[in-house]
Amino acid sequence: MNIRLYNAKILSMKEGQDIFEGEIWVKNDRILYIGDGNDTDQIYQEFPGTCIVWDREIDCKGNLLMPSFKNAHTHSGMTLLRSYADDLPLDKWLNQMIFPVEAKMNAEDIYHLSKLAVLEYLTSGITAVFDMYLTPESIADAFDDMGMRCVQVGAVNDFSQSLELVEEMYQKLNKKSSLQSYILGFHAEYTCQRNLLEQIAALAHKYKAPVFTHLAETEGEVAGCKERYGMTPAAFLDSIGMFDYGGGGYHCVYMTEEDIGIMKRRGLFAVTNPGSNLKLASGIAPISRFLENGVKVAIGTDGPASNNCLDMFREMFLVTGLAKIRQKDAQAVNAFEVLKMATVNGALAMGLEEADVLAVGKLADLIMIDLRQPNMQPVHNIPKNIVYSGSKQNVIMTMVNGKILYENGTFYVSDSPENIYQKAEQIKQRIIK
Amino acid sequence: MNIRLYNAKILSMKEGQDIFEGEIWVKNDRILYIGDGNDTDQIYQEFPGTCIVWDREIDCKGNLLMPSFKNAHTHSGMTLLRSYADDLPLDKWLNQMIFPVEAKMNAEDIYHLSKLAVLEYLTSGITAVFDMYLTPESIADAFDDMGMRCVQVGAVNDFSQSLELVEEMYQKLNKKSSLQSYILGFHAEYTCQRNLLEQIAALAHKYKAPVFTHLAETEGEVAGCKERYGMTPAAFLDSIGMFDYGGGGYHCVYMTEEDIGIMKRRGLFAVTNPGSNLKLASGIAPISRFLENGVKVAIGTDGPASNNCLDMFREMFLVTGLAKIRQKDAQAVNAFEVLKMATVNGALAMGLEEADVLAVGKLADLIMIDLRQPNMQPVHNIPKNIVYSGSKQNVIMTMVNGKILYENGTFYVSDSPENIYQKAEQIKQRIIK
Repeated sequence: MNIRLYNAKILSMKEGQDIFEGEIWVKNDRILYIGDGNDTDQIYQEFPGTCIVWDREIDCKGNLLMPSFKNAHTHSGMTLLRSYADDLPLDKWLNQMIFPVEAKMNAEDIYHLSKLAVLEYLTSGITAVFDMYLTPESIADAFDDMGMRCVQVGAVNDFSQSLELVEEMYQKLNKKSSLQSYILGFHAEYTCQRNLLEQIAALAHKYKAPVFTHLAETEGEVAGCKERYGMTPAAFLDSIGMFDYGGGGYHCVYMTEEDIGIMKRRGLFAVTNPGSNLKLASGIAPISRFLENGVKVAIGTDGPASNNCLDMFREMFLVTGLAKIRQKDAQAVNAFEVLKMATVNGALAMGLEEADVLAVGKLADLIMIDLRQPNMQPVHNIPKNIVYSGSKQNVIMTMVNGKILYENGTFYVSDSPENIYQKAEQIKQRIIK
Repeated sequence: MNIRLYNAKILSMKEGQDIFEGEIWVKNDRILYIGDGNDTDQIYQEFPGTCIVWDREIDCKGNLLMPSFKNAHTHSGMTLLRSYADDLPLDKWLNQMIFPVEAKMNAEDIYHLSKLAVLEYLTSGITAVFDMYLTPESIADAFDDMGMRCVQVGAVNDFSQSLELVEEMYQKLNKKSSLQSYILGFHAEYTCQRNLLEQIAALAHKYKAPVFTHLAETEGEVAGCKERYGMTPAAFLDSIGMFDYGGGGYHCVYMTEEDIGIMKRRGLFAVTNPGSNLKLASGIAPISRFLENGVKVAIGTDGPASNNCLDMFREMFLVTGLAKIRQKDAQAVNAFEVLKMATVNGALAMGLEEADVLAVGKLADLIMIDLRQPNMQPVHNIPKNIVYSGSKQNVIMTMVNGKILYENGTFYVSDSPENIYQKAEQIKQRIIK
């Protein structure tokens, strides 16, 4: 497919590049041209064999094209549990409500439930997710079938996912399709025995690969780790070589200066999940301190059971709003920094360097933001409008890998929303009531 | 207009009434019937002269009808300043950025800018706002022309709005139209000399009327009041008889136990504005303590300069999420309580007892929520879905006073969005650059 998007404002998120008016040409899965439209002769020279016949030419009517959002921490299959268990602290929520239901979910269930999540991601301009859940192969099938990008991460723990499975998936899913990839990971320090954690670290060394995990989400988790090992989770995991090849932590709410020093030294990503941290009363992550120390922050929604939606706009506002409250400083973490976390940093955390910004040769993972809606008017500053005032309603086009999967409220995917809702309802009837 | 809404789920918000399947009949501005549709013969008997010819019969397709949201604190005319001044603390934001621009705005500007806000309210299912701003008559004209309900509140202060104007507006706007009303109020303790505050209290006594004001929004405001009068703002204002006939405060972030006792004793409403309080780094209001003490809480977006959007869904999630963080308790302030604040309590605070719940004889101010969108599926619990997962995207119909003003993304108002955006842009060009 060759798609020309013209008459647009373009926020490329490339370092130092301001918003400009122009167009983007997409050839198959890549950006072929981005610019003001006056220097396109060069494209024909650079691609002499290319005879461009446009499958679609889209008049953006002055609306904004920008890199899509990357949801850097989620559990897509948990859509089943949206609004099922709420108003409970993390430990009760997990042990009394979530785990018993999850024990009854099979791979096919998770396939359908992940497809439901994909629909929701598309409405929020999310084109790639960093997904940690139970049945990696059926999750990869779901995302492939929907045409959506997914970077899965291992969820090794003592009871439901083995190291062997994670190594197998690491080899298998990284070769499955251009949309799927897999990164080493484990559920959390508190759900893995020391011996298992050391084996994961050994695996990281074997593949010289980064490792991600839930990290310092609650005060209780940090206290438990200190009791077990006399160290914080970040310090203990680092001490056994877990992060020798990078990686990062999800949540990162309770981080000491020493922990932040480790993250900086190892180049670890702090993936923040403010909606979930509020809803489970976990706390407020020290985003300003991460930034001051040069630690890259990405943003995730966490799963729909703990949020309960998969909406990057809500998360972006929360990242800056909670940072301002935590620091008692209205200048803390400005809108542009947040936008970078939700796009560029998310891509980098997930190993999607080819989908970080809009530039020639990059993957065509991009969105169109409707500036002609009342919440965007008048336009003083587009990044501020998006972060402080934007909503899913402003996403009028979501393109993944060069294909438009969502446009003006309609999904262009391989399955119908009604069919997907029906499957989710059937699973709910079977498992929950 | 007679409109029949059938095949709906109905959340009436009437005390003790569960969600049921049925229909609502609207005759002119009122609800004529609400029920399961099996007892409508009675309606014909009760209204023997009524020959119902439906102007529209709407199949709700199993979606939800519920009372509209009431935005209990805003400054609509500030749409001009959306994303104009951000990342600044309240005092600098107000004195250096907001006041200088406001000094250049005239009544006609505020008319157009208020119309822009109305469009945004409708997309979020808001049908009435508690508006405090500069030119009451042009604001009332804007809301009347758009067919939207507005309860204005006085903004008496030492420099830009006189007591005389407020008394004049109190008499005039309460008679203007069925959509407009006016409540006594002043900007804040810290922007009024003691003498002026005493005159406002005397006015409240003259009319036996409630008074609303910005109250205890920042630590600095409370400290200043203590220095001036040796008391907190709530205690001082109560001591001069300001709240003898009720009323309430906007923000109410820094409230002592004594302050909360005053609110309870006087039946004052605490109108919370969590988005604004985050963005200006003001703090987190003690919502759980208000509820424990029987103080009614309503929710407002505050103005678009300090939020920067006018979206009740974001505010609802923030009310519960921030309460959970503040109390370190994931059970604090559940979804249904929040929904009640955003609907029933908002109406009561604004003197709109006739628009609080869905019941026969009440004003037909209601919305339809699309449950067939991915963020609402599967459906375990509708109030939780709305508060934890809902968004403006789910609002597919907004009815004000029996008229549908917004449906499936299209506005049915007296002016076009493009024209309103253009007016706002012209004002921006004239005043700001």
